[in-house]
Amino acid sequence: MSYTAPLKDMLFVMNELAGLAEVNAMPGCEDATPETAEAILEENAKFCGEVVAPLNHSGDQQPSFWTDGKVTTSAGFKEAFRQFGEAGWQGVQHPVEFGGQGLPKLLATPCIEMLNSANLSFALCPLLTDGTIEALMTAGTKQQQETYIANFISGKWTGTMNLTEPQAGSDLALVRTRAVPQGDGTFKISGTKIFITYGEHDMAENIVHLVLARTPNAPEGVKGISLFVVPKFLVNADGSLGERNDVHCVSIEHKLGIKASPTAVLQFGDHGGAIGTLVGEENRGLEYMFIMMNAARFAVGIQGLSVSERAYQKAVAYAKDRVQSRDLAGSAGPVTIIHQPDVRRMLMSMRAQVEGARALAYVAAATSDAAHFHADEATRKANQAFYEYLVPIVKGWSTELAIDVTSTGVQVHGGMGFIEETGAAQYYRDARILSIYEGTTAIQANDLVGRKTARDGGAVAKGIIAQVRKTAAELEGDAQLKVIGLRLNEAAGALEEVVDYVVANVKSDIKSVFAGSVTYLKMAGVVLGGWQMARAAAISAARLKAGEGDAKFYEAKLATARFFADQILPQALAYRTAIVDGAQSVLALSEDQF
Amino acid sequence: MSYTAPLKDMLFVMNELAGLAEVNAMPGCEDATPETAEAILEENAKFCGEVVAPLNHSGDQQPSFWTDGKVTTSAGFKEAFRQFGEAGWQGVQHPVEFGGQGLPKLLATPCIEMLNSANLSFALCPLLTDGTIEALMTAGTKQQQETYIANFISGKWTGTMNLTEPQAGSDLALVRTRAVPQGDGTFKISGTKIFITYGEHDMAENIVHLVLARTPNAPEGVKGISLFVVPKFLVNADGSLGERNDVHCVSIEHKLGIKASPTAVLQFGDHGGAIGTLVGEENRGLEYMFIMMNAARFAVGIQGLSVSERAYQKAVAYAKDRVQSRDLAGSAGPVTIIHQPDVRRMLMSMRAQVEGARALAYVAAATSDAAHFHADEATRKANQAFYEYLVPIVKGWSTELAIDVTSTGVQVHGGMGFIEETGAAQYYRDARILSIYEGTTAIQANDLVGRKTARDGGAVAKGIIAQVRKTAAELEGDAQLKVIGLRLNEAAGALEEVVDYVVANVKSDIKSVFAGSVTYLKMAGVVLGGWQMARAAAISAARLKAGEGDAKFYEAKLATARFFADQILPQALAYRTAIVDGAQSVLALSEDQF
Repeated sequence: MSYTAPLKDMLFVMNELAGLAEVNAMPGCEDATPETAEAILEENAKFCGEVVAPLNHSGDQQPSFWTDGKVTTSAGFKEAFRQFGEAGWQGVQHPVEFGGQGLPKLLATPCIEMLNSANLSFALCPLLTDGTIEALMTAGTKQQQETYIANFISGKWTGTMNLTEPQAGSDLALVRTRAVPQGDGTFKISGTKIFITYGEHDMAENIVHLVLARTPNAPEGVKGISLFVVPKFLVNADGSLGERNDVHCVSIEHKLGIKASPTAVLQFGDHGGAIGTLVGEENRGLEYMFIMMNAARFAVGIQGLSVSERAYQKAVAYAKDRVQSRDLAGSAGPVTIIHQPDVRRMLMSMRAQVEGARALAYVAAATSDAAHFHADEATRKANQAFYEYLVPIVKGWSTELAIDVTSTGVQVHGGMGFIEETGAAQYYRDARILSIYEGTTAIQANDLVGRKTARDGGAVAKGIIAQVRKTAAELEGDAQLKVIGLRLNEAAGALEEVVDYVVANVKSDIKSVFAGSVTYLKMAGVVLGGWQMARAAAISAARLKAGEGDAKFYEAKLATARFFADQILPQALAYRTAIVDGAQSVLALSEDQF
Repeated sequence: MSYTAPLKDMLFVMNELAGLAEVNAMPGCEDATPETAEAILEENAKFCGEVVAPLNHSGDQQPSFWTDGKVTTSAGFKEAFRQFGEAGWQGVQHPVEFGGQGLPKLLATPCIEMLNSANLSFALCPLLTDGTIEALMTAGTKQQQETYIANFISGKWTGTMNLTEPQAGSDLALVRTRAVPQGDGTFKISGTKIFITYGEHDMAENIVHLVLARTPNAPEGVKGISLFVVPKFLVNADGSLGERNDVHCVSIEHKLGIKASPTAVLQFGDHGGAIGTLVGEENRGLEYMFIMMNAARFAVGIQGLSVSERAYQKAVAYAKDRVQSRDLAGSAGPVTIIHQPDVRRMLMSMRAQVEGARALAYVAAATSDAAHFHADEATRKANQAFYEYLVPIVKGWSTELAIDVTSTGVQVHGGMGFIEETGAAQYYRDARILSIYEGTTAIQANDLVGRKTARDGGAVAKGIIAQVRKTAAELEGDAQLKVIGLRLNEAAGALEEVVDYVVANVKSDIKSVFAGSVTYLKMAGVVLGGWQMARAAAISAARLKAGEGDAKFYEAKLATARFFADQILPQALAYRTAIVDGAQSVLALSEDQF
């Protein structure tokens, strides 16, 4: 159950698809040379493979547990997290002024992928801390930044996001936690928050909660929610730890997967009120939280990719090892099951989805970098719009496909896949949360339809589709790549029809449009993932023609891109029918007919 | 977490789609009147809902466990199984001469569905006993039949199937268990069998193992395998229990799901040899086991339907109860989530797949009855061929869709779905074995391609497709049903292309054909399930026009059939492309490129 980072594919995607050199050329990205990137990835791969990956299965078998308000994390987690902080891995993408490395997202993304492949449960703690850092960098006071961020980056402290309450899940308008000003600049927070990932644990000296709450007289709904920092231990003026704050973990959940990561129920203010300070302005909390959530949503998309990669590696290893049945075309004795065509199909299906998801996510990361660092404002703006269109797709598509990929991973193992000792089942269980937390796929799809497609009349979406068509046309002109080009073109056409349908009907028939929202999201993932695979195929064909680089790698990439085109892209046409013609029956039944 | 049998849909499918009246008219089926059927279903629904369903979640939380060779089943199982036997539920489809009710498969099938919806783990014990009865009725001696079958039917004893060994899973040619004749008509059996469902438990006085083993000098491979009866306790001449036989449970597995059902490792003959008797002729064991497996495969297909139905019911209940977010088209306060279009889409997707799978399975059951009971030999033969074509599809398609349906069930619950207390996750875990045991989906697909399609040059397949087209043409002629007809026709055409492709290429390019075998199976499921939904739509439209029956029910059926046509049937076209054009990339990589 080892993990070997797919460095070759990561570097291919970074350099040849996502354009690391272009990112490196932007002001502020001078350190992100291809050489540095390779060195960092190799070092990170070593750390993840040797220190973090071995704790994955054991953590699942012996989850973190709660006793009297304290959470003991799975064996080895505390020490591994100490090493993680000391090696500087929390700081890859964070500001140099607080001890980070200040590297672009394109470089941080493969590091996040590796950590999550190694151990989803472990990686969740840094993932949440990343979001906390991002929120405080955007909206925190200078004092808040100085108090917390360096301690986050060093791994001494960790951060959490406190949104959900029993009655407020997908709908944050229903948040009831209260924050009462004390007249000294602080607030007393009281309420119950649930599903708080690493809301309590023993891996850090302090745990810093970002909490959504309502001040007295705040307006109803989402416009009356503010954001507060509430540390487990109050922090003295000299930065040392002060009194224990009134936030307590009353239980942790018994979950289907990611069992080593404690999911806490936190009680704020049961003993006089938890002391917190406001982040940014009052009543703008949801806006700040969205900054944090957008970063976290992208990262959860990477989690989908990560667990899929890990499941793929395990399935390949089993298929190369397990001897069963003869080769269909031969008459000799039993062979390893990788010789069976259906095992091949399963492995290729896992591989193609993993590579497509990686390519799309890394390209999105580079787009985010261009939105931040590019010298030209118009280019920054265009890239920001492109990135924002991609975030719900990376989150939604990569996590939905993770369910399929990890399920296929179980299937490759046959009966052994169902036995927990084998380890394949853990990925299947772990993956199942990814399309739910940080906004369900439906919430991502609402964002994609509403803010990302309808709001600008489909302009950004159509701009992207035009780029897809351009790639398709290039491939159609090449005999070897023609089929990929044709299928991509057909899929792009179907996506365009859907965008037109969404834009044309979202006002007059909102329910019909949203009846197809998740299908639209999945379709966009398939088409844009297929687009990146097509680009990869074109590059690979060119390298092979020129006799450059690793021929075996480029040949495999070509075959995988062709698999994607033949076996996955055609689904786009079925999705089109479902969206454009299929809303009526989705909504036809009355409640009592269910 | 209650279960209410969907009697209305079951009776509709039995009476109006599968033709219970026609079955009832066959010689030997006189007792299976529609009135009797309804009465039996109602009684079974009560038993399953009140006695068996309440043990499902508790059994998952407190699985059966092993101590010193003994297995204690989950709390309540023993008592429930006693009631099950006493009420006569084991005997529904078995011979009257041994205490059964001798009813047709069409009537037994909904009973099996209900028991499995109530509790997959519990239902596995009778499921295996059914197979044992069937094998002994076919190939057992009169003495074996008299010794065992009445005790099976009364629920005093249970049966198991012992096929798998550590090195022999999908490939039974590798079976090594030995059977040495003792000169007195008995054999001494020795070897290790794994994955033996209910191989040891405390619910019955005796456990009777059917075991695949090799006699000395038997030929290599599948032609040298014989079938033996090996009871846990030897049976005296007067039918009383004798000595403990030398078969022992050395451990049970720690599994992803169906945790209440003990999955045993059995050791035969470690203390001198387990005594067994031959079933049928030497070296024909695999043939007999296939009789048992065909029955079991159909039943596992029903399990897929069953767990999907249960997951659907739970998701509907949650969606009607959980309040979150406003109605998209309204401005009032938060509403139950069943108002959200994407929740509707998820529920409809679950519902349409459940209803399609039920319709196809029950129609298959009626076909099996016609193959057994019809007065005309040619009709029996035609129905047997139809049934044999359907078995791998019912098994493969219904179990693959169960993974999707139960996963969607988790998604409907949002974060609560990931918490084990909620119960939705159990269905997702339980369902994952169904596409693996009793032959993986790939094994079903091998059967579909090899024995069921290629062997007769696609004749049976084409005959069925002609019937599908006939239905499609009828619907196309009706304004209300036209779209369903069109989509069904298109899908049937695609399936026909695939059948032609399989027949044309299976000899010259076997690997390419098998690279698409599972996709062909899933496609056949979608098209034939869609066919039954189309037939259901036509019947419903006619009833509504005539003002007959429950209008709400028929309207819902029409909408669900339309959903199937819009959202599921179009996948057939993508499958066609994947099968007919997609084999090349499945097989392109060399082993070291993975």
